[in-house]
Amino acid sequence: MSEFEIIEKYFKNATGNTGVSVKVGIGDDAAVVTVPEGMQLVLSMDTLLSGVHFHSDTAAEDIGYKSLAVNLSDMAAMGAVPVWATMSMTLPDIDHVWLKDFMVGFNGLASEYKVDLIGGDLCRGPLSITIQVHGLLPCDTAILRNGARPGNLIYVTGNLGDAGLALKAMQGAASLSDHDQRYVINRLNRPTPRIHTGIALRGLASSAIDVSDGLLADIGHVLDLSYTGAVLYMEKLPMSDALCRLEQETAWELALTAGDDYELCFTITPEKKEEIENRLNAICPVTCIGKITEQAGIRCIGTGGALFKPAGTGYRHF
Amino acid sequence: MSEFEIIEKYFKNATGNTGVSVKVGIGDDAAVVTVPEGMQLVLSMDTLLSGVHFHSDTAAEDIGYKSLAVNLSDMAAMGAVPVWATMSMTLPDIDHVWLKDFMVGFNGLASEYKVDLIGGDLCRGPLSITIQVHGLLPCDTAILRNGARPGNLIYVTGNLGDAGLALKAMQGAASLSDHDQRYVINRLNRPTPRIHTGIALRGLASSAIDVSDGLLADIGHVLDLSYTGAVLYMEKLPMSDALCRLEQETAWELALTAGDDYELCFTITPEKKEEIENRLNAICPVTCIGKITEQAGIRCIGTGGALFKPAGTGYRHF
Repeated sequence: MSEFEIIEKYFKNATGNTGVSVKVGIGDDAAVVTVPEGMQLVLSMDTLLSGVHFHSDTAAEDIGYKSLAVNLSDMAAMGAVPVWATMSMTLPDIDHVWLKDFMVGFNGLASEYKVDLIGGDLCRGPLSITIQVHGLLPCDTAILRNGARPGNLIYVTGNLGDAGLALKAMQGAASLSDHDQRYVINRLNRPTPRIHTGIALRGLASSAIDVSDGLLADIGHVLDLSYTGAVLYMEKLPMSDALCRLEQETAWELALTAGDDYELCFTITPEKKEEIENRLNAICPVTCIGKITEQAGIRCIGTGGALFKPAGTGYRHF
Repeated sequence: MSEFEIIEKYFKNATGNTGVSVKVGIGDDAAVVTVPEGMQLVLSMDTLLSGVHFHSDTAAEDIGYKSLAVNLSDMAAMGAVPVWATMSMTLPDIDHVWLKDFMVGFNGLASEYKVDLIGGDLCRGPLSITIQVHGLLPCDTAILRNGARPGNLIYVTGNLGDAGLALKAMQGAASLSDHDQRYVINRLNRPTPRIHTGIALRGLASSAIDVSDGLLADIGHVLDLSYTGAVLYMEKLPMSDALCRLEQETAWELALTAGDDYELCFTITPEKKEEIENRLNAICPVTCIGKITEQAGIRCIGTGGALFKPAGTGYRHF
């Protein structure tokens, strides 16, 4: 089967949502799309590499889902609506069952958010998937990392640390009940991109970032770009039952430093607290975990006001 | 050095052309750009993998150049003006000399065409570069693959087969003079994206494609999508002196089936012959090599009207 037959069979018209905005999709030298007037284009590209971003025995369906989800998460952090995706796959060989399963995972999520696969590339080599997602938002409404101000409240969506616990369990460094194991591995492989939350935060949040490398590392980017610091209250960290069953400091460590959560971390002015909580909790749980300070650095406050010092700092790519 | 320090040092503000259209570049969850009114967005993504798309001892500067060039070539084939690039790099380790050299090659070409690097990803693994280029063109002026009609003349830019000869020489299957060897290897590593030609072809060409997998394979896509066939005249194939010094049939074989030329192949109605040749030869040489036929398939006419049957069919990705 040639590259072109594979593309025809598995990728072309994969998602079936192709709207009028796609003038040329898969099958020409390049794709051609129309960006509606008054909208800006938002671009995010992420690579998932076997053995680095997912375990080599991860199910193809989960890889397909997650490859798209991590990019959608970046759209969420900007407040953008994802619209089109391009994908370059490097495959060790053509395994039709694997490809079909991969696309089940990809398409499931793509359909949910009406994202069209409009182009890409395919070549032979070590398993790796690079996806770029293209989103839209009304001009000048992007939520950036540099807008956090002293006194702002810091929120996160969902729970933190589940994916980190899954990795720990897979490495044999944590022993979980079957139920907890299934729950955290699903959280690792199937993160929920917080698209609707991101959209709802437009005009409300002063900054936002998605938590992919660990809360401390990612909030660190917001603080660096905003020239501020933060205080975080450990007892406020939203954690699943699975995490709460661990020793407290282990759970805090995971919630602060483990990667792959793909939750949103955002800041708001205190006056917006009630509005945010009312509006957002209807979409997904949000929790206030601390506040932005003038003083640089991040202080983590544990039980009884004592400083908590995590051992790790977050996922390092190199 | 962290991923973020590397990005800051080598990639951020790399090209320095950032225009007002880039609202958010490298350093946030995603990039944000504005597509001017009346323009469509053109997207092309290509991966170059060490050992597959380039020899593992290729100079970093050449890899940087070519990674961008192959995507610009796709823009050219659509008639688009390239504007923004995103890049995901997978690197075995952080080699500062390699990274600096890579970016010299990338930036040289990016500056020439005023392409801004606005985002991407970086991770550790087997050397691989995925670039997406984003171009612009006035609405509904894209030159597609499906517009070739019987009677149309078929043209190519530049010369064909040089990159194929370079690969042959590198494999020891061709013995060239030092001068020819340098020339063809430069053609392999530094293909010229035919951007200006592509732009000039808007409204004139009935179809266009870039020759990346070999002329026969690529023209085959045009014919398939246009429901037509073609006749090609071997003695018209534009070939460099290096190719002309080979045995004639070897040279024709390379010109027809070797990949990596990154020349444009386009079709026009015969009435436009003079206009095209006058207008285009000022930009880069173009040669009429055949015509589109109602009869399906490709017939290659050699010396004295005899059919020439090449042994190969073009580069297969799988």
